Amino acid sequence: MKIDILTLFPEIYPGPLGVSIIGRAVKRGLAEINAVNLRDYADDRRGTVDDRPYGGGPGMLMNVEVLAKAITALRKPETLVVLTSPRGRRFDQAAARELSGKEHLLLVCGHYEGVDQRLIDSMIDREYSLGDFVMTSGNLAAMAMTDAIIRLLPGALGHDESSQDESFTDGLLEYPQYTRPPEFRGMAVPEVLLNGDHARIAAWRKKEAERLTRERRPDLWRDFLNNQKLGGK
Amino acid sequence: MKIDILTLFPEIYPGPLGVSIIGRAVKRGLAEINAVNLRDYADDRRGTVDDRPYGGGPGMLMNVEVLAKAITALRKPETLVVLTSPRGRRFDQAAARELSGKEHLLLVCGHYEGVDQRLIDSMIDREYSLGDFVMTSGNLAAMAMTDAIIRLLPGALGHDESSQDESFTDGLLEYPQYTRPPEFRGMAVPEVLLNGDHARIAAWRKKEAERLTRERRPDLWRDFLNNQKLGGK
Repeated sequence: MKIDILTLFPEIYPGPLGVSIIGRAVKRGLAEINAVNLRDYADDRRGTVDDRPYGGGPGMLMNVEVLAKAITALRKPETLVVLTSPRGRRFDQAAARELSGKEHLLLVCGHYEGVDQRLIDSMIDREYSLGDFVMTSGNLAAMAMTDAIIRLLPGALGHDESSQDESFTDGLLEYPQYTRPPEFRGMAVPEVLLNGDHARIAAWRKKEAERLTRERRPDLWRDFLNNQKLGGK
Repeated sequence: MKIDILTLFPEIYPGPLGVSIIGRAVKRGLAEINAVNLRDYADDRRGTVDDRPYGGGPGMLMNVEVLAKAITALRKPETLVVLTSPRGRRFDQAAARELSGKEHLLLVCGHYEGVDQRLIDSMIDREYSLGDFVMTSGNLAAMAMTDAIIRLLPGALGHDESSQDESFTDGLLEYPQYTRPPEFRGMAVPEVLLNGDHARIAAWRKKEAERLTRERRPDLWRDFLNNQKLGGK
């Protein structure tokens, strides 16, 4: 798959996406990440990419004509155009899985106070938000989404890693984990993990994942119970 | 304030945190960001920082002794030690605001399949998750949190920017924005924004922020109504 990222700061790419699992996936050709400078589409010599909001208020918006020109140039028939925006629906593991099946993503990084609503309505296929907090731009959101998407591509994780047995895959938080030493600061590893009885270990982990989810994330827990009623797993 | 980030990939810092508003805030001395290599605390020559999970299963955990040594070395009495983890509570604007008031944060980036539960219980003050998705490591979560925290420091935003009039500050999504041209792809700018009547503009924006929140985020809308009943703003 190919991911184009439209940004005012192409120099920070690949950066965090150039190391570890994502860096290796790109090197092996599983995905291509391409940062495009929005300023390349500016009409004037100064490279103006912002404009003032109608109705006043603090801050600037992204320039509509420049953004429209860039999206038109980069978009192909198969492209899904995604805007990072605190107003968008929340990006989650289901979205990561869906987007990892696309051929071409164009991630438009929000900058300044945001994007003209008419441009969103006419040229953006999806708005995604990382969460209910505000960052200085959409770059870290685009990077986080790219990371979550690419690691789900077949072959991206080594055979020692797995995307099947982790938080959110079955709608639950992951069970607690333990490693050496057997005793740490007066606390022992739960006995069930030491006796090699794999059926008991699996049952304990399932119970703990359910307990953690119920205690920490009543919202996920409700969804989990509803899915079970509907015959989901 | 000072933010230490404990990571296996210190070379990707400051990266996205070195440009724009955060880069300027650091240059002006409002905050210090310091990436620390976890491998510096490894005991063996190979720099081993992982270990196998009790009870089996795919993947490795972070080595308990190495992590404990690093946290002990970096933590001061005033330090808040934060672990990035999909199991944590969700990082949001209230958390960003609270953490921007701390003197020293130690952000521990989760790697591999995670961290021993006993180490979390005894040495981690907070676990935060960016959202319900899985990334290859906690680095992008640490960067996103650092961005959201530092931009709230007094003086970080220019006088042309503002953290008062944006999504989540009053518990609502932000109203739609418009900029030139007056007509774009057959769509006009709402008339109210063009007539310079600031009271009407403010009323329209408030109504639109409430409409967007009600339509897109029933969860936020419920919280907003409850806060109003309790006499909040």
